[in-house]
Amino acid sequence: MRRAVALAARGLGHTSPNPVVGCVILDAEGQPAGEGWHQRAGGPHAEVHALRAAGERARGGTALVTLEPCNHTGRTGPCARALLDAGIARVRYAVADPTGQARGGAATLAAAGVDVAAGPLTDEAEAVNEAWLTAMRRGRPFVLWKYAATLDGRSAAADGTSRWITSAAARADVHRLRAEADAVVVGSGTLRADDPHLAVRDRDGVTQPLRVAVDTDATALKPDARILDDAAPTLVAVAEDADTGHLPAGTDTARLPRARAGRGLDIAALLAALHDRGVRSVLLEGGPTLAGAFLAAGAVDKVVGYLAPVLLGAGPAALADAGITTIAQALRMDTADVTRLGPDLRITAVPAAPTTTLAEEN
Amino acid sequence: MRRAVALAARGLGHTSPNPVVGCVILDAEGQPAGEGWHQRAGGPHAEVHALRAAGERARGGTALVTLEPCNHTGRTGPCARALLDAGIARVRYAVADPTGQARGGAATLAAAGVDVAAGPLTDEAEAVNEAWLTAMRRGRPFVLWKYAATLDGRSAAADGTSRWITSAAARADVHRLRAEADAVVVGSGTLRADDPHLAVRDRDGVTQPLRVAVDTDATALKPDARILDDAAPTLVAVAEDADTGHLPAGTDTARLPRARAGRGLDIAALLAALHDRGVRSVLLEGGPTLAGAFLAAGAVDKVVGYLAPVLLGAGPAALADAGITTIAQALRMDTADVTRLGPDLRITAVPAAPTTTLAEEN
Ligand SMILES: NC(=O)c1ccc[n+]([C@@H]2O[C@H](COP(=O)([O-])OP(=O)(O)OC[C@H]3O[C@@H](n4cnc5c(N)ncnc54)[C@H](OP(=O)(O)O)[C@@H]3O)[C@@H](O)[C@H]2O)c1
Ligand SMILES: NC(=O)c1ccc[n+]([C@@H]2O[C@H](COP(=O)([O-])OP(=O)(O)OC[C@H]3O[C@@H](n4cnc5c(N)ncnc54)[C@H](OP(=O)(O)O)[C@@H]3O)[C@@H](O)[C@H]2O)c1
Repeated sequence: MRRAVALAARGLGHTSPNPVVGCVILDAEGQPAGEGWHQRAGGPHAEVHALRAAGERARGGTALVTLEPCNHTGRTGPCARALLDAGIARVRYAVADPTGQARGGAATLAAAGVDVAAGPLTDEAEAVNEAWLTAMRRGRPFVLWKYAATLDGRSAAADGTSRWITSAAARADVHRLRAEADAVVVGSGTLRADDPHLAVRDRDGVTQPLRVAVDTDATALKPDARILDDAAPTLVAVAEDADTGHLPAGTDTARLPRARAGRGLDIAALLAALHDRGVRSVLLEGGPTLAGAFLAAGAVDKVVGYLAPVLLGAGPAALADAGITTIAQALRMDTADVTRLGPDLRITAVPAAPTTTLAEEN
Repeated sequence: MRRAVALAARGLGHTSPNPVVGCVILDAEGQPAGEGWHQRAGGPHAEVHALRAAGERARGGTALVTLEPCNHTGRTGPCARALLDAGIARVRYAVADPTGQARGGAATLAAAGVDVAAGPLTDEAEAVNEAWLTAMRRGRPFVLWKYAATLDGRSAAADGTSRWITSAAARADVHRLRAEADAVVVGSGTLRADDPHLAVRDRDGVTQPLRVAVDTDATALKPDARILDDAAPTLVAVAEDADTGHLPAGTDTARLPRARAGRGLDIAALLAALHDRGVRSVLLEGGPTLAGAFLAAGAVDKVVGYLAPVLLGAGPAALADAGITTIAQALRMDTADVTRLGPDLRITAVPAAPTTTLAEEN
C-alpha cells in the first residue's frame, strides 16, 4: 500500500476534479504484478492502469488501492466492475470514498464474493488526498495559504522592497505548491504591486494551475498584465457590476457578489465559483489583505509560512486584518511540520479544532 | 573533555565576571580521579576543585580543562601553579584564554616541563563560554535578544492583550535564559505596560540576574514597581539629568548620556556601565522599541525567538524601528538552532558575518 500511496502522489496537480489514486496488483502468490495511478482527469483510473499492466496475472490476486474503487459509470466505467472482470480475489482500500456518487464500490465487490476490507495506511492515503477529501467534505476547494516573511513577520521592507527575503530553495518549493494546486489566487494589491506571473516554472510535465486575479472593480489589472498571458489559464474575479471593457477580448471573468461587510468580493461565492469549475485545491498567494479576508471567512485549511532568518523592524506585515481584535480570538493552529529549506524555515500549520468541539468531546 | 564541558555548564549564571570552567583529572593510568567546576565568582577555580577531589592520584596524571588554566594570582591563586604543585604531567585545554590578564598559563606549564596542548572539543567549549568569550572580545557584555511572537510577527493583539501567546514550555525556557544571564534588560514601554518582575522563578540554587530598567527620564517606574522589590538586585538606568526623587531611597541608578540621535539612552554607554559592574551577559527582554535600538547599535549577538502557531493579523510587531528602510539593509542572520517547545518553535539565530568580510575571504 505504501507503494500505492507513492504512485497516487504522482497525480497531484493533474487529476482535478478527481482525486489522486494509486493501485498495486499482486498476483495469486502475492508477487507484484502491475501498478498504476490516475494520471489525469478523463484518463483511465488507477485500477485500470494497474490491471492492464498485470494482465492475466491479476486473476486470483489482490488489488491494493489508496481510495475505495468507484462504482459509477463515468467517463471510464466503474472500477469495481473492472476488478471483478479481471478475477481479482482480494481488495484493500486505504480510504473510503466520501462522495455519494462513487460510494458503494466496496459493497459491490463484497456482494460479488471478493474479500474486501478498508486499510491499511489510512492516514498516509488521507494525507496524499488531503485537498480532494477536504473539498468533498466542505463542498468548496481546499485552501492553502502560503506566505513568506522575516522572523519579525514582515513581507517587505519599509520602502516596499522585498526581493529576495526568502531563498531560492524556498521559492522553488512555492513552485512545487503551485504545480500541485488547481488554482493560484492573488488579490488586487498584489496585482498592482508585483504584476505577478503565477505560472509554474522549471517543471516538466506540469499541469499549469488556473491563475485567479481577485480584482473587485477590475481596476488593478492592466490589459498587458503578465497574468493575462497564455502560459496558463487565467480567471478574473470581479464584482457583478464591474466594468471589464478594458480587458482583452476573451478574458475569462467570474462575476461575483460583493462582500456583505467591508471591501472586496464575497469569499464564499469566490470559492463556490472555483468549485463549480472543478477546482479542488487553491493556493492562496496573498497578499496580506486578501489572506486576512480568507482567514476571517474560515476559508483557510492549511498555512505554509516560509520564514527567513532576517529582521527588518519596519515594513508591511505578512498578514493584515482578519477580524481579530483580542487575544482570545487569536487563530490557534497545530504545527504539522517544520523543515529547513536552505537558510529558511518552512512551517506548516493547520487551524486547531475549535475549542467548542473539543469541549463537546470531553 | 566532554565531561569537563558538561561540568562547566553547571556554572552558567553564577560565575560572572569570570568564565565558566570545567575540569577532569585523570590519574597516571588514565582513569578518572577527580572533577570540578567553577561554581561562583570568588570561589575556587575548576582545577582546584578537581585537584582536591583527585588528591594524590593527580600525580603523573592528566588535567582536561575547558579553558586555558590561569596564570595570575587573583582571589584564588594561579591554577597553573596548583597543577604543577599537584604533579600533573599532561594538560589539555579546549579554548585559549583571550584575556591579557590570565594569558600565559599554558606557557608557564610548558616551561615547567608539562606536556601541554590546546583542544580537543574547542567548538563545544567555545559554545558553553559564548557569553564570556564574546564579552572579552568585544569589551562589552554579550547580548541575547529574546522575543515571543505569533507566526505573523505580532507580540500582542490589537487591544494589547497578549497572555498567553506562547506556551508554558516556552515561558519556562525564558526563565532558564534569565537564570543563565547576569542581567535582564527592559525598556520603559514594557515597564509601563506590564510592570514586569523579571526575577527567576521555580529554580533551585539560582543566582538572580541584575534587573535593569531603562527609563530615560525616570517617568515610567512607579515607586511600587514590582521590579524594585528585593527578589533580585535592580539597576535603574536614567539620563544624567533625570529626576529620580520619587524612587525609593537606596535605589541603584546609573546616570548615562542620552542617545546622540533619537530618544532614549546611549546603548553603548548602557552596556559599558553594565560591563563595569561585572555583567558579562545580558538578556534583552524588550520591548520592540528598545530591541530595535540595540539592533541599530549593532549590540545584539544572538536572537532567540519563541514563535507560537497563532495568527493575529493585527497588533504590535515583535520588533520596531531598527533603522532599516530597504531590503538591502536587512539584518541577515544564520539559524543556529530550531527546537519545538510544546506547541511553539524556538528559533536561535546569530547575525551573519557582514558581506564585506565574506567578500574579503573570497
Ligand atoms: N510575502 C508574501 O508572501 C506576499 C505574497 C503576496 C503579496 N505580497 C505583497 O503584498 C502586497 C499587497 O498586499 P495587499 O494586502 O495590499 O493586497 P492583496 O491582499 O493582494 O489584495 C487586497 C485587495 O484584494 C481585494 N479583495 C477582494 N476581495 C476581498 C475581500 N473579501 N477582502 C479584502 N480584500 C478583497 C481588495 O481590493 P479591491 O476591492 O480593489 O478588489 C483588496 O484591497 C504587495 O506588496 C505584495 O508584494 C506578499
Ligand atoms: N513579545 C515579547 O517578547 C515582548 C517582550 C517585552 C515587551 N513586550 C511588549 O512590548 C510592549 C512595550 O514595547 P515598547 O516598544 O512600547 O517599549 P520598550 O521597547 O519596552 O521601551 C521603549 C522605551 O525605551 C526607552 N529607551 C531608552 N533608550 C532607548 C533607545 N536608545 N532607543 C529607544 N528607546 C529607548 C524609550 O523610552 P524613554 O525615552 O521614556 O526611556 C522607549 O520609548 C509592551 O506591550 C510589552 O508587553 C513584548
